[in-house]
Amino acid sequence: MAMKQVACSAIKAVANSGSSSVLTRQLHASPGSKKIVGVFYKANEYFTKNPNFVGCVEGALGLRQWLESQGHQYIVTDDKDGPNCELDKHIPDLHVLISTPFHPAYVTAERIKKAKNLQLLLTAGIGSDHVDLKAAAEAGLTVAEITGSNVVSVAEDELMRILILVRNFLPGHHQVITGDWNVAGIAYRAYDLEGKTVGTIGAGRIGKLLLQRLKPFNCNLLYHDRLKMDPELEKEIGAKYEEDLDTMLPKCDIIVVNMPLTEKTRGMFDKDRISKLKKGVLIVNNARGAIMDTQAVADACESGHIAGYSGDVWYPQPAPKDHPWRYMPNQAMTPHISGTTIDAQLRYAAGVKDMLERYFKGEEFPVQNYIVKEGELAPQYR
Amino acid sequence: MAMKQVACSAIKAVANSGSSSVLTRQLHASPGSKKIVGVFYKANEYFTKNPNFVGCVEGALGLRQWLESQGHQYIVTDDKDGPNCELDKHIPDLHVLISTPFHPAYVTAERIKKAKNLQLLLTAGIGSDHVDLKAAAEAGLTVAEITGSNVVSVAEDELMRILILVRNFLPGHHQVITGDWNVAGIAYRAYDLEGKTVGTIGAGRIGKLLLQRLKPFNCNLLYHDRLKMDPELEKEIGAKYEEDLDTMLPKCDIIVVNMPLTEKTRGMFDKDRISKLKKGVLIVNNARGAIMDTQAVADACESGHIAGYSGDVWYPQPAPKDHPWRYMPNQAMTPHISGTTIDAQLRYAAGVKDMLERYFKGEEFPVQNYIVKEGELAPQYR
Repeated sequence: MAMKQVACSAIKAVANSGSSSVLTRQLHASPGSKKIVGVFYKANEYFTKNPNFVGCVEGALGLRQWLESQGHQYIVTDDKDGPNCELDKHIPDLHVLISTPFHPAYVTAERIKKAKNLQLLLTAGIGSDHVDLKAAAEAGLTVAEITGSNVVSVAEDELMRILILVRNFLPGHHQVITGDWNVAGIAYRAYDLEGKTVGTIGAGRIGKLLLQRLKPFNCNLLYHDRLKMDPELEKEIGAKYEEDLDTMLPKCDIIVVNMPLTEKTRGMFDKDRISKLKKGVLIVNNARGAIMDTQAVADACESGHIAGYSGDVWYPQPAPKDHPWRYMPNQAMTPHISGTTIDAQLRYAAGVKDMLERYFKGEEFPVQNYIVKEGELAPQYR
Repeated sequence: MAMKQVACSAIKAVANSGSSSVLTRQLHASPGSKKIVGVFYKANEYFTKNPNFVGCVEGALGLRQWLESQGHQYIVTDDKDGPNCELDKHIPDLHVLISTPFHPAYVTAERIKKAKNLQLLLTAGIGSDHVDLKAAAEAGLTVAEITGSNVVSVAEDELMRILILVRNFLPGHHQVITGDWNVAGIAYRAYDLEGKTVGTIGAGRIGKLLLQRLKPFNCNLLYHDRLKMDPELEKEIGAKYEEDLDTMLPKCDIIVVNMPLTEKTRGMFDKDRISKLKKGVLIVNNARGAIMDTQAVADACESGHIAGYSGDVWYPQPAPKDHPWRYMPNQAMTPHISGTTIDAQLRYAAGVKDMLERYFKGEEFPVQNYIVKEGELAPQYR
């Protein structure tokens, strides 16, 4: 078993764990100039409209001056897919790749194989499923996120989407812009959130923040997760634990998806599972699009079995013009946006800077930020 | 001073108060068959889509069988404006007029003068500004609302609108339906609600429910009202009292209007007051459209001084096709809908039935439901 050159504490941790069959790559503290590539969405004319707009190609997370003044090379692009894309030009010699879930650089096993100098994959935000984590682990790479940087942003957005669906907001707004006025056409399927049963699949950081925000709405709150919450926290939040997912789901008027995309969760909302949900169920999914069977969701929206679907995640991203979710009825979709508010950008930009600083110094990252470390995947991705 | 024939307790109340220069009209407990007219929005094809859809003309608040079995006449219409409208045909001999804020029957002094048998004006919902309250008081009419029937509905809707504006939801949704994908075009003006300053003008029933629902969002909460809350409640809600409205307003990132339309509040958001708000302020108004100077709001949205405006109230209603708020940028408007969810309809239908029962028996209404009683306006309308 080859040991990587890491900071002291990490060496101890590895020595104690006795783990890993990973290849030799220098993870931390290798001296000298690094080549860092950032893949972000492009802002174009929007860049100059807000001085805090750092999350785009032009903003480059506000890191350029700092990185270059230390002798590092910093390439930023939005050109991430297809033959001869800008990203592929830098794959052979980059040391660090920073990407975001909003404009994901798909880091395949093939790219990892070609990236001989690659040491660190940083997700500016949360959710590293755009990386082939198994291949990254086998290659001895470190994958890390800025955990916590946008959990509040996403939880707020989920609550907004619940209300938009329950209260049937969009048909009303559509009437306004088309010059109509037909209260009945909205009201016949508009409800209060109060008294409804809301279940979250996953009660990690985001799920908990959502439940806390839901509490004053006097709903019946349920959650499913690998682990039951601490009883004190559960009482404070006022949500009931459901050990079995498929027992919980048919009870829900509103289902919120709050778990990562893994091989276990991919496509888990298929035709069969959807058919067992309450007729007229509302679904909010800001987690990952591929947790859903795309066509099964579109069909259930057409039939009315799903009465409303809202989220900001799609597969693939950007969503093509002919993605069925653009055309299905009762959708309240947006592009992938909930975790990239200006507030979130400032937080994950600061988080990336902190992680790079630690990387240059050969220091450990905050433990909750690791997704792949020394050949091991974080528990939520196993 | 002429005294009305009222239930015993009411007689005592009036005798004790020594008030009123009102005309003689039988308010309660006059025996025999009554003519009751309800003005609601029409549902047409939507009526059969939901068995609980009682708030429309066709649903007639679910009261027809009950009223007719007791020998009362019950006319229901949506035809409320213009010469020879259905409502005007019944004005001369109706005893009770039930109306809603969603499709308001404008009860002018002229109509009151013609309505020789009119005793009771009931608002199925909250907000009786569609009635000339001064004329109603002078004519000795009783005006009452179903206070509380839809306060939760409206508060939920306000929180939804705050999030829609702060998080810049609509441009993202618009991209989805037009086949676009441009995260930057949304993100450059999308924010978290957390940490922002939210001020409500009015902290009555709806304002308090909104503040309670805002609490877990970790905002800076302010409220202006005639009265400071009980210190215990204020602490529980976590909002700070602002005695002077014009001191509070420039502090707010988000302003929510939660007060009735009165002669004092009509047009209070004029060009001058808007110019003193924070540049980029967001405004949510589910109270009444006429509290705003329509053109001043549209101009400030055009200039960007107001960065977003959302509400479901307009003047007049239905809003004409050329209403400027349909065309101004960054609006998240709907027709008047927030208080007429299916849940709210069931509550205000039950409330109207209860009030009519009391009226037939000559009993008092719950005190908080009176808007005009024995020539006096409720405090919020003075």
